Amino acid sequence: MSEPAGPSRRRGRRPAGEDLRSAILVAAREEFARHGYAGATLRGIARAAGVDARLVHHYFTGKDDVFAAAMELPVRPGDIVEAALAGGLEGIGERLLRGFFAVWDTPGGRVRIVAIVSSVLSSETGIRMIKEFLVQEVFERIAAALGPDDPELRAALAASQVIGLIMIRYVARIEPVASADPEEIISFVGPTLQRYLTGD
Amino acid sequence: MSEPAGPSRRRGRRPAGEDLRSAILVAAREEFARHGYAGATLRGIARAAGVDARLVHHYFTGKDDVFAAAMELPVRPGDIVEAALAGGLEGIGERLLRGFFAVWDTPGGRVRIVAIVSSVLSSETGIRMIKEFLVQEVFERIAAALGPDDPELRAALAASQVIGLIMIRYVARIEPVASADPEEIISFVGPTLQRYLTGD
Repeated sequence: MSEPAGPSRRRGRRPAGEDLRSAILVAAREEFARHGYAGATLRGIARAAGVDARLVHHYFTGKDDVFAAAMELPVRPGDIVEAALAGGLEGIGERLLRGFFAVWDTPGGRVRIVAIVSSVLSSETGIRMIKEFLVQEVFERIAAALGPDDPELRAALAASQVIGLIMIRYVARIEPVASADPEEIISFVGPTLQRYLTGD
Repeated sequence: MSEPAGPSRRRGRRPAGEDLRSAILVAAREEFARHGYAGATLRGIARAAGVDARLVHHYFTGKDDVFAAAMELPVRPGDIVEAALAGGLEGIGERLLRGFFAVWDTPGGRVRIVAIVSSVLSSETGIRMIKEFLVQEVFERIAAALGPDDPELRAALAASQVIGLIMIRYVARIEPVASADPEEIISFVGPTLQRYLTGD
């Protein structure tokens, strides 16, 4: 492994792991902003951070993991999708929502999701970045599990309902949705996702 | 009617109608930003514009009309809601969507809706303003037409799907939703709104 050249080098000692990881995340934010999610590579992020690519793989399991850490997502959305898909298509609408609520519906999760929405919507670059991430790591994974009948359209419409729910419940905080029990919301919205993903 | 004191007064002649209307809209934007939609009044807007309140009523049919003009909305959302409700609850999901698509799905409408979303989401003030407007002029009108079973929750969930659709189709422009024929989207999303507003 080559000598890392991160922001810590000036301190005149070998940077500790946290410094290296932080340097990678700083570089990742720049690379994602510059090249989008699809165009950024782990190799390019390593180069920008001045570290060996193997070090990126040491800290992160893949590009989605680097992205989730760089954006300070409380979870990798792909993980929620994979977990929901693992149970098959039956009941997947409710499982997806329960997975998301488990992460969002904490005080920290609420603050974080509002910050992320504000940040990505404030620029064309941010919108492109989150769009490419959602398409590649969320929609395409769901669509791949569906039948041949409009899978991408169905996945994107399911996402539209989830994103709208985020806007109403967490960003605009419109009552009674903002304070409703998650299970009450799931009883309405779960069947919507179920129909988009699996119904006629 | 008292002598109007708008920005045109310095020109040393009686301001033309367009100038008065513009002065009212400038004042309205400030009043809505300062007091929110619910707190702003036509009287306060007239005072801020330096015109008689009757002049505001001369140019605008009501607060929602002033707001739609100040935000450069291509239509008053309340009008779309009223038109959809006028047909009764049967088929209201599709009618609401068709009404919105008729306004959004023009080149000018697409540009304008993205500008509005960016503008209102960029500040707490903007979010509060649009939230109060949507609650008062859209959600409450729909909820008033529904039965006693969670009408506000149902109206807000319907709005969440519509707002998510705006985000996916117009703001993030995620395919295939961005380019899909409106009728194809209506075939999926119409039944969702129908169930939220009228179903079990």
